[in-house]
Amino acid sequence: MFRILVLIALAWVAVSPALALADQLPSWRDGSSKKAIVSFVERVTTNGSPDFVPPAERIAAFDNDGTLWAEQPAYFQLLFAIDRVKALSNSHPEWLTTEPFASILRGDLQAALAGGERALLDIIMTTHTGMTTDEFSQIVKGWIASARHPTSGKLYTQMVYQPMLELLAYLRANDFKTFIVSGGGIEFMRPWVEDVYGVPPEQVVGSSIVTSFEVRDETPVLVRQPKINFIDDKEGKPVGINQHIGRRPIAAFGNSDGDLAMLRWTCSGPGARLCVYVHHTDAVREWAYDRKSHVGKLDKGLDDAQAQAWTVLDMQADWSVVFPE
Amino acid sequence: MFRILVLIALAWVAVSPALALADQLPSWRDGSSKKAIVSFVERVTTNGSPDFVPPAERIAAFDNDGTLWAEQPAYFQLLFAIDRVKALSNSHPEWLTTEPFASILRGDLQAALAGGERALLDIIMTTHTGMTTDEFSQIVKGWIASARHPTSGKLYTQMVYQPMLELLAYLRANDFKTFIVSGGGIEFMRPWVEDVYGVPPEQVVGSSIVTSFEVRDETPVLVRQPKINFIDDKEGKPVGINQHIGRRPIAAFGNSDGDLAMLRWTCSGPGARLCVYVHHTDAVREWAYDRKSHVGKLDKGLDDAQAQAWTVLDMQADWSVVFPE
Repeated sequence: MFRILVLIALAWVAVSPALALADQLPSWRDGSSKKAIVSFVERVTTNGSPDFVPPAERIAAFDNDGTLWAEQPAYFQLLFAIDRVKALSNSHPEWLTTEPFASILRGDLQAALAGGERALLDIIMTTHTGMTTDEFSQIVKGWIASARHPTSGKLYTQMVYQPMLELLAYLRANDFKTFIVSGGGIEFMRPWVEDVYGVPPEQVVGSSIVTSFEVRDETPVLVRQPKINFIDDKEGKPVGINQHIGRRPIAAFGNSDGDLAMLRWTCSGPGARLCVYVHHTDAVREWAYDRKSHVGKLDKGLDDAQAQAWTVLDMQADWSVVFPE
Repeated sequence: MFRILVLIALAWVAVSPALALADQLPSWRDGSSKKAIVSFVERVTTNGSPDFVPPAERIAAFDNDGTLWAEQPAYFQLLFAIDRVKALSNSHPEWLTTEPFASILRGDLQAALAGGERALLDIIMTTHTGMTTDEFSQIVKGWIASARHPTSGKLYTQMVYQPMLELLAYLRANDFKTFIVSGGGIEFMRPWVEDVYGVPPEQVVGSSIVTSFEVRDETPVLVRQPKINFIDDKEGKPVGINQHIGRRPIAAFGNSDGDLAMLRWTCSGPGARLCVYVHHTDAVREWAYDRKSHVGKLDKGLDDAQAQAWTVLDMQADWSVVFPE
């Protein structure tokens, strides 16, 4: 009898790989969001299904800030830049009297950012350029291994979403290729996302600055220049996807209006499609914000998701765990 | 006895996977080039070898024109553009009296290109932009399936190099990820390189024009704009590699001075490295050209290859077959 049960179980696994793997999402409570995801994966991976998609075309795109890890009280890359200003301030005495650096060194982020886009660009360019790509990678690795979030006191890599880690693994187990498509810096993410998300550097799409090839002491290097190359946000996301991936994803995950063009691009393709918005509804375990937030604003996207019948994931209701324990 | 031989053979396969796969290069004659390639693959794939490289870091970069397929009498993408001018000429009567189009329509390519870079840009922009990315992909697919090379009369996809097809497959069988890094258009290559080379669109790096996200009749599209975005040639190749792949290849294959920066970038990294120049030495089966060629000029690269002890593959001597039969 036991043997027959095993055979039945094996047969069931053979015909329904997606269902068999659904318990790979233990931090997802049963509900419409989990159901929409599992049902989609099942349909595109079942041989003979009218929605079957060959493995090579199973491309899934994930926003990073607010979708794979938290983004409050400010984008973590901005907190990195602020930490860098502090770390470099000893060799820049002039910063004590120059904005936006003086405000940062006084600990007044709001005043530092009062200068708007110009101030932000100053902070980013000062801390992100002038070094080689290898040097920058080492700087990011050092920071990500040691820096602490200002309110939780956790490492930033501990503020990734456990359910999304499970989702990434679940999709890959179903022969999806998972890509990050983020407004954040491509070279800020690459040094750590492979370890943390299992996404290799060549599957990261992001904003970038110009780099130039130089030969220093007979050794070729790439030097990061203080000039924007590409902003991978809003309408830039489909452009970045096309540039890097060269095919349209069949699934996309975001959390803000900055992801709307990516979701529209993904879900307007033919065949089965999955578009998911992560809705930050959990003020206790994480943060609750949407239409009026200065970070990760989700306004038009929330309306469009309803109109298009996309999945809007309710962080409070849908996730039994938010951060890895 | 037979059984013992089998066991010995199996053991040998187990310890030396690269050697066992070396007969996957049947169109390569035994010689220093084949030996350099097989020995490199063996060293980086043998567990416990001081040169062992984990699979995730086994990145190999291939130039396309003159390295994976032929490039004479002109880059095939230029021949595509010329075919497009002819195909579109009925709806452009003004081209009969406008250069460089008038010369193309008279069949005088040399006169058409007498206008230098400006003429070339005119031809490329007129034939490569204004349509959506999906439309362009269809145009390329139609052309590659039917257009014939002006002197051989073959399909262009029959003018790929059989030994390089074997090499791509051999590297992938050894857990390399194979990338194309070409000065050619990224969206000119993507529609066919997966079928022909087994390289998926997301592993193609190339030159590009600007695309813009637009919504036409409620449907999002990407429209190709008449503006250069990136030239993936010379110093642009390491930049493109860094932008798309985010790690340095451990092996690179090129055939011209346009590949020199890529080879330098690849072979100046730490650990075992392989840099190979394809030298066009076979005037009978293909073409013979190097230092003075207007296409695929290999001059400084030939000197540097000698100085750096890179592998210079002699097409006439090293390949028993050039094109697939």
